[in-house]
Amino acid sequence: MSIVLGQNQYGKAETHLVRITRDSPRHEIVDLNVTTAMRGDFAAAYTHGDQSAVLPTDTQKNTAYVWAKTHPTDPIEEYGLSLARHFVDDVEPIESARIEIERFAWSRVSIDGTEHDHTWVRSGQEVRTAAVTVESDVSHVIQGFKDLVILKSTGSAFKDFLVDEYTTLQPTDDRVMATSLVAKWRVTGDLDGIDWNAMYDGVKAVMLERFANLHSLALQQTLWEMGKAAIEAFPRIAEIELSAPNRHHFIVDFSPFGLENRGEVFHADDRPYGLIQATVLRDDAEPAGDAWRFSAGLA
Amino acid sequence: MSIVLGQNQYGKAETHLVRITRDSPRHEIVDLNVTTAMRGDFAAAYTHGDQSAVLPTDTQKNTAYVWAKTHPTDPIEEYGLSLARHFVDDVEPIESARIEIERFAWSRVSIDGTEHDHTWVRSGQEVRTAAVTVESDVSHVIQGFKDLVILKSTGSAFKDFLVDEYTTLQPTDDRVMATSLVAKWRVTGDLDGIDWNAMYDGVKAVMLERFANLHSLALQQTLWEMGKAAIEAFPRIAEIELSAPNRHHFIVDFSPFGLENRGEVFHADDRPYGLIQATVLRDDAEPAGDAWRFSAGLA
Amino acid sequence: MSIVLGQNQYGKAETHLVRITRDSPRHEIVDLNVTTAMRGDFAAAYTHGDQSAVLPTDTQKNTAYVWAKTHPTDPIEEYGLSLARHFVDDVEPIESARIEIERFAWSRVSIDGTEHDHTWVRSGQEVRTAAVTVESDVSHVIQGFKDLVILKSTGSAFKDFLVDEYTTLQPTDDRVMATSLVAKWRVTGDLDGIDWNAMYDGVKAVMLERFANLHSLALQQTLWEMGKAAIEAFPRIAEIELSAPNRHHFIVDFSPFGLENRGEVFHADDRPYGLIQATVLRDDAEPAGDAWRFSAGLA
Amino acid sequence: MSIVLGQNQYGKAETHLVRITRDSPRHEIVDLNVTTAMRGDFAAAYTHGDQSAVLPTDTQKNTAYVWAKTHPTDPIEEYGLSLARHFVDDVEPIESARIEIERFAWSRVSIDGTEHDHTWVRSGQEVRTAAVTVESDVSHVIQGFKDLVILKSTGSAFKDFLVDEYTTLQPTDDRVMATSLVAKWRVTGDLDGIDWNAMYDGVKAVMLERFANLHSLALQQTLWEMGKAAIEAFPRIAEIELSAPNRHHFIVDFSPFGLENRGEVFHADDRPYGLIQATVLRDDAEPAGDAWRFSAGLA
Repeated sequence: MSIVLGQNQYGKAETHLVRITRDSPRHEIVDLNVTTAMRGDFAAAYTHGDQSAVLPTDTQKNTAYVWAKTHPTDPIEEYGLSLARHFVDDVEPIESARIEIERFAWSRVSIDGTEHDHTWVRSGQEVRTAAVTVESDVSHVIQGFKDLVILKSTGSAFKDFLVDEYTTLQPTDDRVMATSLVAKWRVTGDLDGIDWNAMYDGVKAVMLERFANLHSLALQQTLWEMGKAAIEAFPRIAEIELSAPNRHHFIVDFSPFGLENRGEVFHADDRPYGLIQATVLRDDAEPAGDAWRFSAGLA
Repeated sequence: MSIVLGQNQYGKAETHLVRITRDSPRHEIVDLNVTTAMRGDFAAAYTHGDQSAVLPTDTQKNTAYVWAKTHPTDPIEEYGLSLARHFVDDVEPIESARIEIERFAWSRVSIDGTEHDHTWVRSGQEVRTAAVTVESDVSHVIQGFKDLVILKSTGSAFKDFLVDEYTTLQPTDDRVMATSLVAKWRVTGDLDGIDWNAMYDGVKAVMLERFANLHSLALQQTLWEMGKAAIEAFPRIAEIELSAPNRHHFIVDFSPFGLENRGEVFHADDRPYGLIQATVLRDDAEPAGDAWRFSAGLA
Repeated sequence: MSIVLGQNQYGKAETHLVRITRDSPRHEIVDLNVTTAMRGDFAAAYTHGDQSAVLPTDTQKNTAYVWAKTHPTDPIEEYGLSLARHFVDDVEPIESARIEIERFAWSRVSIDGTEHDHTWVRSGQEVRTAAVTVESDVSHVIQGFKDLVILKSTGSAFKDFLVDEYTTLQPTDDRVMATSLVAKWRVTGDLDGIDWNAMYDGVKAVMLERFANLHSLALQQTLWEMGKAAIEAFPRIAEIELSAPNRHHFIVDFSPFGLENRGEVFHADDRPYGLIQATVLRDDAEPAGDAWRFSAGLA
Repeated sequence: MSIVLGQNQYGKAETHLVRITRDSPRHEIVDLNVTTAMRGDFAAAYTHGDQSAVLPTDTQKNTAYVWAKTHPTDPIEEYGLSLARHFVDDVEPIESARIEIERFAWSRVSIDGTEHDHTWVRSGQEVRTAAVTVESDVSHVIQGFKDLVILKSTGSAFKDFLVDEYTTLQPTDDRVMATSLVAKWRVTGDLDGIDWNAMYDGVKAVMLERFANLHSLALQQTLWEMGKAAIEAFPRIAEIELSAPNRHHFIVDFSPFGLENRGEVFHADDRPYGLIQATVLRDDAEPAGDAWRFSAGLA
């Protein structure tokens, strides 16, 4: 028996960079949190402390900044692909690079109905994410979002479930359903001709439509329908991973007070919460390879 | 010398309640985090453990729920006034009640341009707040918001400041200015006839306009102008308290790379940050009394 | 009527500095989060954008670092007094300075019972705090802690409370009592000869003893006894401010499962929580002046 | 092409339960955050909203509470194995269960050197974790911790690294090295006879010793040595996964102030941070199966 180094990667996490385009009086803003991770044969750094193949994480940070100057940052997927390709193509020991990006949304301030040229307010609840993996012969893009908090005040039931001796939950025909959705979808085919922003907006719209209009029998069913609709609408999507905490809204018992609670007043609870995690995919999807592997957890 | 009890209050913090109005197929949602605090002669509870004058915090929670059923929750200021008056008027030992409320914004999901009847997405960055104090003979309302994150990419300078032997900062004619603004304004006069939602929207609009259009010489000056504009626009506002972290956006030094950074790429830093706190007020404002006293810190 | 500037201060928040003393192979570590705030006549900065009296917050940060080199950082109260006096004495427009400090605890790593010379592990739950205010003629020190999470599994009752029509809480003779305590005590007299570390350890020990040994009839009573004991033990303490969330531990109802819960299994709830805020003070304490005023909220 | 359901699991996350043992006046406390997740053929719940095979997450919560009454909670690994086996053995559709547990440490309050019977203070920085997976024919336990914040003030270098055109970092022979370590180790063999608490304490001690005594040439090398030492000391450990943010302590530049900074004053930065992720394993380790699969992310 001997002890060996297994899977590993290293990089710079959460380089929070803001890119202002100021070629005209009407500025543009792109606000990114960038995480870079490098893979390759870095065993000597571990086993012998030999750094000769290690590009410092500080350099990775510098490179992320430089790329924000010299390459488009919008859409974030193109920025990520370009940055990852640089590391793999130009830095000898790096065999594979993974770039995880969070993008924060800003809206222009409107004054008397006119959008301001250079003033914004942070908007939106959700954070758009991308995870780009570039290897010598294959690349992957996973587009997604997190913290999309959605709620429907009717059109959701939960009943006819399995009952054992520890079950006290009462079935219901009408409940509040709410979640803070995390969704990530893997895109296949040629990654260079895609309108990423249109895809992002489209997937989000399709998923919101399904959440709103489907009569829900369970959060599982809702997630399935949302994922299926996204894949049907976008042939380039091979699979979609969904993680949904069930943010319980408990109806307040008004019986001690001689009142009736007709689904009007709820306690929004923090913990514990149901947690549903599922993947929906095409059965003929090309394999994911390392697309999902060893996430730094930030996208 | 003897040891005595000083200022004190007790209550239930962060009752997170959601009110759905479902009188028609088009539901309405109000999402509140309510903190109640009671004042009066509760010394015996401290010095002798005598609870006979203490309305349990659990009861305060129940009451907040019941009030959400039996009284309007929108605007939150009316809900807070009504709930506070109940405690002071109906529960003997309570001399004064303070209700702090956070309101979270939701937008209807739009599907093909049509707003959905019963599905929402959490929207907006800022949280609307209210702090209501009701005493036997006087009431106060402080309206406000927190977490309003705003940024301007030009129109902000900082120069001609005091320099001592520890000063290394370079003056600048053009910087990114960003903050996560907390604002609270005290409203005076008859509190029962006010259009609170119009006031909230109006103050926010006026302040955003000033932030956008004022050429800033310092965050202090910007805050002053924002506060002054709000008071000028709304005669009922006696004073406004502003707290603004200066979210530094440091320009990245590209000189090692033979590039020029023309205000295009910034590092958005976390800590430390400048922190400006100021009050702007009418010089003839009626005294604040206990309006600001002993906040639970949640509004 | 005219609009005027009210109370204000500005400074640099959360300069996170670590001081290593390496005069011998056995290093020492002091880990501080320092917030500085300046007061004086800075009205022109607000009303006219005139920065000529404004020492930049960046300079305040530099000064905090330099002071960590040139002055002791332990005890933090002496560091804070020294730093504040510099600003007031040496920088003309500054009339008063407030320094808020958080100190994070580290323990030496022990290997086979021997403490290591230069390796530590972050320890302790609570954060020690200090708020120092220096004016031209008077100085104040408020010592304290936050996030001290304590629990007793018996010796706590809550009964004989006021009951109204919204009360559903059942009285109890034996409950779990837990809180995350914030305590701040104001020290009076000559501030230069005090053994601050001994005072901190002593106040904490006295308060823990009271929490442990007092049969509690209410959290109010417990806080009163803890505060009173601290003041009795330390004559230099004029007053102590306590803020205690009641971290409810709800007993789980096992009756549906044919089991009895004899105070053995609890749900530790997040929100809402009771919140008790109180001050205990000597009746002959010298006035607090601006000791408590306009906290940046970090100590 | 058709769309199918991929990997999935569902459960109840973050049931925060506290177990008090009160068989004698000297109570014991175990404070757990428990996440349960079920796997099996639950496709109908997704594709048809059919809940007949779905044990509600509310029932899982109830069961976690009941198990805390009827089974030992210390060590947490035995509690997790027992709870998981119940779901797999006793609830028909459940083929596999994963239990993730966080355990929070409490120390007895000491009064004049005597430990109190029923009063504790939350202690320690790190959170002990366990992830238990039980399938019909195999079980896995991953023991670990997170948030172990460690620092050494000397004995760490970083030099002789790869340099490209974006590299500005200077090599150093002596720096502060700090991290907030996450470690998880997979234990193989018969899982029923293990002294889990001794293993936990032993792994932590071995890893701290390596961190302290190894002259570090890179965080990678330090992690490798820590992981290797743990595996060497505990033959039952097959592999160990390490994730270590490099919490940068930047030396403050004192040259503008005519001072020298001999490694004495540092800025503890928040973001970005280096992030090193690596696995160290025996080359003859039995395969991991689903031990690591589809974590809920809480252990």
